[in-house]
Amino acid sequence: MKLVQFWHDSTPALGLQTPQGIVDVQAEAARRGVSAPADMAQAIALGDEGLSQLAPLAEAARCFTSAPLAPVVTQTGRILCIGLNYRRHAKECGLPLPPAPVPFCKFSNALAAHGEAVKLLPDYKEYDYEAELVAVMGRPARDVSVDEALDYVYGYTCGDDLSTRDLQFARGGQWLLSKTFDGFAPIGPCLVPARELDPTALDISSQVNGQTRQSSNTGDMIFSVAQIIADLSRHFTLMPGDLIFTGTPQGVMQGYPADRKDWLKPGDRVSVTIQSIGTLENTFV
Amino acid sequence: MKLVQFWHDSTPALGLQTPQGIVDVQAEAARRGVSAPADMAQAIALGDEGLSQLAPLAEAARCFTSAPLAPVVTQTGRILCIGLNYRRHAKECGLPLPPAPVPFCKFSNALAAHGEAVKLLPDYKEYDYEAELVAVMGRPARDVSVDEALDYVYGYTCGDDLSTRDLQFARGGQWLLSKTFDGFAPIGPCLVPARELDPTALDISSQVNGQTRQSSNTGDMIFSVAQIIADLSRHFTLMPGDLIFTGTPQGVMQGYPADRKDWLKPGDRVSVTIQSIGTLENTFV
Repeated sequence: MKLVQFWHDSTPALGLQTPQGIVDVQAEAARRGVSAPADMAQAIALGDEGLSQLAPLAEAARCFTSAPLAPVVTQTGRILCIGLNYRRHAKECGLPLPPAPVPFCKFSNALAAHGEAVKLLPDYKEYDYEAELVAVMGRPARDVSVDEALDYVYGYTCGDDLSTRDLQFARGGQWLLSKTFDGFAPIGPCLVPARELDPTALDISSQVNGQTRQSSNTGDMIFSVAQIIADLSRHFTLMPGDLIFTGTPQGVMQGYPADRKDWLKPGDRVSVTIQSIGTLENTFV
Repeated sequence: MKLVQFWHDSTPALGLQTPQGIVDVQAEAARRGVSAPADMAQAIALGDEGLSQLAPLAEAARCFTSAPLAPVVTQTGRILCIGLNYRRHAKECGLPLPPAPVPFCKFSNALAAHGEAVKLLPDYKEYDYEAELVAVMGRPARDVSVDEALDYVYGYTCGDDLSTRDLQFARGGQWLLSKTFDGFAPIGPCLVPARELDPTALDISSQVNGQTRQSSNTGDMIFSVAQIIADLSRHFTLMPGDLIFTGTPQGVMQGYPADRKDWLKPGDRVSVTIQSIGTLENTFV
C-alpha cells in the first residue's frame, strides 16, 4: 500500500497511490459508507487498524484526485538525520566507521514534496544530494530494544538529504545550518507501511539529470534502522510523525575526487529511488 | 513588564509577574471588561498592541494565581543555540574565535520550567550547565539586516543550555544528542519585552549550589543577538516563538582544569541570573 497526501482546499488530505491514480480516501470512504483515517496524522495514530481500513479502498475505487502531491507525511517539528551510516560512504569520505550513530537534524521548513522545485541560495556553490531511506515513527518510543524497535515505525519513504558542503564544515563543524535551508529535505513520493518492508535489504540509488550517481543497498548501513531507533530512544522520547533520515550510501559529490566534483546547480534534476517505495524527484532553481 | 505562563486547567495561561504575585491576565482583563492576549502565542502575534493591553493589568490587579509556573514561552518546534559565542569562553576551551556564528539546536522535549527538576541519565556523568540569554522571536524574519534584526525579537528570558560532555564529542562531533535530553533547556522565570532591554550590556551569571561559577556580561559576546539573527535569517526564515540560546560566558565546568572538574549530579541546584530579567533555578534528580 502506498500512502500519499494531496491538497484538498489548502489542507493536506490522505490519498492512496494506485496504478489507476491517487484515490481520495475521504471521498471513497464516504461513497462506500465506511470509516477511514481523516488525515495522515490520524492514520499514524490508528496504526494497523487504520491500515486495515485503508487497504480495501485501493481496490475498485471510483474517487480519484488530480490535485498535485504535497509533502507525503505530516509536518512534525523533528527531522532527525544520521550521518556517515553506510560503510562505503564513510570510506569515500576518508573517515573511520563511527562507533555509534551520529545524529544531527533539520527543521521542518526543510520539508519539500516530490516534484517540488528547491531553491539554491546564490551565496554558496557546493550543493550536494544524498539518497536516504526515511523512517516515519508511529508510536512514542522510549528505551526500546533493538529487537522491538521496528514495531514503533509506521512506514518508510524516500528522502534527499540536501547539503551545502561549503557551509557544512565552516560553522564549528555543526552541520545544522548547511542542511536546513528551505526545501532541503524532500521526501516522497509515498509512504509504505512498515509491515510491508524489510528495511535491511532495499536497493537504494540516486540519479542526477538521468545519470546514476549512487547505487547501493540498505544492507550496507553501519547501524540498522532498528539500532538507530533503539539508540535515540535511550536519550529522549521519539514521537509519532518524527522523521528519521537513516544515512546515505557512497557516490555523493562530497566523495568525488576534486577534479571531478560537479555540484548541483539550478536546472538540475535529482531522483532518489528505493526498492518497493518508488522514486522521489526534485528540480533546482 | 515580566510575562510568565502558569497552568490553568492543564493549559498554559498568560500571567504577569508583579511584586504582589502573578496576575492572571484572562481573569483580570475579564474583571475590568478589557481586551488582553489569550495566551503567550497571541501576545507574541499582537506585538506592541498586546504589550499595551497588558501593561495596565499589572497595576492595582486583584486576580492572582497560585498555580505553579509552567515553561515561560510557547513551545515551538525550534530551539536554536549558538556555540562558542563569548570571547573568554572560547579562550577557556582553548579554541580560536569562530569566524561566523556556530548554530546547533535542541528539540522542544528539552524545554523545562523555572523550578522544574531535571533528570540526569545514569549512562553518562559529565553533566554541565551554561547560563545563556535567550531571545524569543516575535515576527517572521528572512534576510533581515543587523540594524533591523532586534525589531524582530519579542522578548528575552534566561536559559540553561545543559550538556552531556562525555556524549557531546563522541557522536561524530555533532552536539545535538548530548544537549536535547528531556528537560535540558530550562528557560524562565519570565519573558521581558525586547523594547525594555538592551541585549548588548546585561550582567549574566550562574551559581551551582549557591557558589558563583559564571559571572560576565553579554558585551563579551563575539556575535551580538542582532548579528546572530541577521545571519540565521539569510539561511532560512525565523518564525514567531522560535527560541535562540545566544551562547554562554566563561566558567562552565568544561573549561575547568581536569583536576577541578565537578560535574553536575543529582541533588545539585543551578541558577542562572540575568540583569533586568531575573533568576532561573533548577534542581537535578
